[in-house]
Amino acid sequence: MASRNALYAQSGGVTAVINATAAAVIETARAHRDVIGKLYAGRNGILGALREELFDTNKETRTAIAALRHTPGGAFGSCRYKLKGIEESRAQYQRLIEVFRAHDIGYFFYNGGNDSADTALKVSSIGRELGYPLACIGIPKTVDNDLAVTDCSPGFGSVAKYVAVSTREAAMDVVSMAETSTRVFILEVMGRHAGWIAAAAGLAGEGRDEAPHLILFPEKTFDKADFLERVKACVQRNGYCVVVASEGVRDAKGHFLSEGGTRDAFGHAQLGGLAPRLANMVTGKLGYKHHWAVADYLQRSARHLASQTDLEHAGAVGRVAVELAVAGENAVMPVIERLSDRPYRWRVGKAPLSRIANHEKKLPKSFMRSDGYGITAAARRYLLPLVGGEAWPPFQDGLPRYANLKLELAPQKLPPWKNG
Amino acid sequence: MASRNALYAQSGGVTAVINATAAAVIETARAHRDVIGKLYAGRNGILGALREELFDTNKETRTAIAALRHTPGGAFGSCRYKLKGIEESRAQYQRLIEVFRAHDIGYFFYNGGNDSADTALKVSSIGRELGYPLACIGIPKTVDNDLAVTDCSPGFGSVAKYVAVSTREAAMDVVSMAETSTRVFILEVMGRHAGWIAAAAGLAGEGRDEAPHLILFPEKTFDKADFLERVKACVQRNGYCVVVASEGVRDAKGHFLSEGGTRDAFGHAQLGGLAPRLANMVTGKLGYKHHWAVADYLQRSARHLASQTDLEHAGAVGRVAVELAVAGENAVMPVIERLSDRPYRWRVGKAPLSRIANHEKKLPKSFMRSDGYGITAAARRYLLPLVGGEAWPPFQDGLPRYANLKLELAPQKLPPWKNG
Repeated sequence: MASRNALYAQSGGVTAVINATAAAVIETARAHRDVIGKLYAGRNGILGALREELFDTNKETRTAIAALRHTPGGAFGSCRYKLKGIEESRAQYQRLIEVFRAHDIGYFFYNGGNDSADTALKVSSIGRELGYPLACIGIPKTVDNDLAVTDCSPGFGSVAKYVAVSTREAAMDVVSMAETSTRVFILEVMGRHAGWIAAAAGLAGEGRDEAPHLILFPEKTFDKADFLERVKACVQRNGYCVVVASEGVRDAKGHFLSEGGTRDAFGHAQLGGLAPRLANMVTGKLGYKHHWAVADYLQRSARHLASQTDLEHAGAVGRVAVELAVAGENAVMPVIERLSDRPYRWRVGKAPLSRIANHEKKLPKSFMRSDGYGITAAARRYLLPLVGGEAWPPFQDGLPRYANLKLELAPQKLPPWKNG
Repeated sequence: MASRNALYAQSGGVTAVINATAAAVIETARAHRDVIGKLYAGRNGILGALREELFDTNKETRTAIAALRHTPGGAFGSCRYKLKGIEESRAQYQRLIEVFRAHDIGYFFYNGGNDSADTALKVSSIGRELGYPLACIGIPKTVDNDLAVTDCSPGFGSVAKYVAVSTREAAMDVVSMAETSTRVFILEVMGRHAGWIAAAAGLAGEGRDEAPHLILFPEKTFDKADFLERVKACVQRNGYCVVVASEGVRDAKGHFLSEGGTRDAFGHAQLGGLAPRLANMVTGKLGYKHHWAVADYLQRSARHLASQTDLEHAGAVGRVAVELAVAGENAVMPVIERLSDRPYRWRVGKAPLSRIANHEKKLPKSFMRSDGYGITAAARRYLLPLVGGEAWPPFQDGLPRYANLKLELAPQKLPPWKNG
């Protein structure tokens, strides 16, 4: 069998460890030169494929590729660009296949979340329809941990660790100042539809007197009066109250408390600003001095505090993705399978993309405390292994030294893409 | 000479390394039992002294004290409580001396910023006036780096490192998403009156094309039109723009852009909310999608990312403070003296509290780029050594393990304090 080339593309919000997946894909492809010729990486994800802007990863040194393992962000660029249904966007799918054909790309690795699994599945089916032989492998990635089938999503463990550590540290600040200063501290974290990240903050403490005292999940309708009553009771009991709030918290009408009114390319509302809103409620109704923080991109780019377990997951799914392609698989995704909680043991399995595409894994009810403001022992058992281990990047002069790629584009062979 | 007891108190906002100072004070006092009998720590700072709530540090194990070195927050509690002038607050100063007399406290170590240096100086003078022999030693601490005389303030180096690292990491996230998502990212950092912390973000990159592209200093009046023009030019040139804004940014009328209207115990305005305000300007006028983060307490409690240099400074000033007291000094503060930038060499000197009390060290003009939106090579030379070295705390199960003190109060000897 003659070797064919491959394309790797990053999709959607990046994570602290998505580049570790990229490194594993590149290294594993290099180890299978008999099957995979050149590995290209799409510039800004699928957009690079459409525009025929393909980085030639062969131009990168082994050292630079290895350094991706400790480098946050998306090294080749990612994008929020959703291909619609095949009938609606036939021209785009056809263009993709044209580009693949021009560069003899027989393997497509798409590293993203639920939307990306859907896209990979559609690309696979259009390839079949057009008689173009193509293996499409999804690779899991999302800080939101809402991918179906896989036990967890690479990227989540690191944001979970960041949020748990930051909550613990900030709480130590608040408690030492509470008597004459801040009584209520609110940390806003990501998680649009599922409270996985907010739940991770629960690892910072145990029992009702340790921070975080209240977690606001998107899964629970926000009840202002009840929230304020709990904040007050907590301050009266402990002298202070630490709240971790998911950006996805909604009111009884289903509106995001944080909604700013703008929407992204996927039609999702752009969130932010929940923490100041909650803080103003607290001070307005209860009179407590507040402080609030919004971690935003800091939480998902904090490679300096990545979870070693997460890093290992990210590498393993990249490696197995290539191995699945080499073994002739199509329309599948490597998934993390948990074998035991403690000691934590896991392996990489595989699942058809059709079981993952456009599904969303919600936080199980059994993970939320019955009052809806905290996590259960079951959640703790699930979450703890995912934040396990440290994976400090190399530092130089006090700052982390991240990878610097050449990012050389392969010569184009087609006329420019007309978006349509 | 018979030994006398000592009191250590933490004051004002805490830092990632103030407990390292506490550890050094306790350990050095223990090494001088011939001079210093018991070392008490005020519960919630000076309030504990007024209320006769004194933790007996002798009850703490050597291991627990050593663990303070890697523990953020203020282990004994701090407070924002300013003693006014001696004539205005004579009763409070007299009460302090009463408490000192009741516990034979001959040494007072006050660990704080400019306000605290002033308090320590006043306590020293009231002691003399009342014929009570007392050595008052200030110990420098503030994330704001605005203490006079000392080359830098313990606590600053760690927040500087946190802000520089976070800026670098978040920028890598933004650049990889910019084409289809966030164009402008705004990180709000602390620094009410001086732009030291904002300046530290400048270490994240070099040259005008590396993030942060724009730094907003409190030292420069905010000019909305000019700011927006620069954001636009940066996005046109680089595809994205990373802004780091000090909470202390003011408009032409001298109002904080972030002012919420509430004030703390020192009468200072409580700030916050600048980042969303700037972000809305950007999207409203330029149409770019934005993201913003407010680091708030995360930046000053992030012991997991402390600077080793800062940690060493914090320990050294604690040790020298006790040595100065033992040597018979009064109304002085240990200060950091820089001997060379690179290699970084420093030593601990001393300065009279009168030279420090109520002064404020501003960011030198020579540290701000002539356009007012970035830092100079001189700033870089000054700042870089302060973020040098990593000082990871011990982790267990993926989370940092911080000190757990017994915090046993010494028996009270006086009637309760009536605040007045």
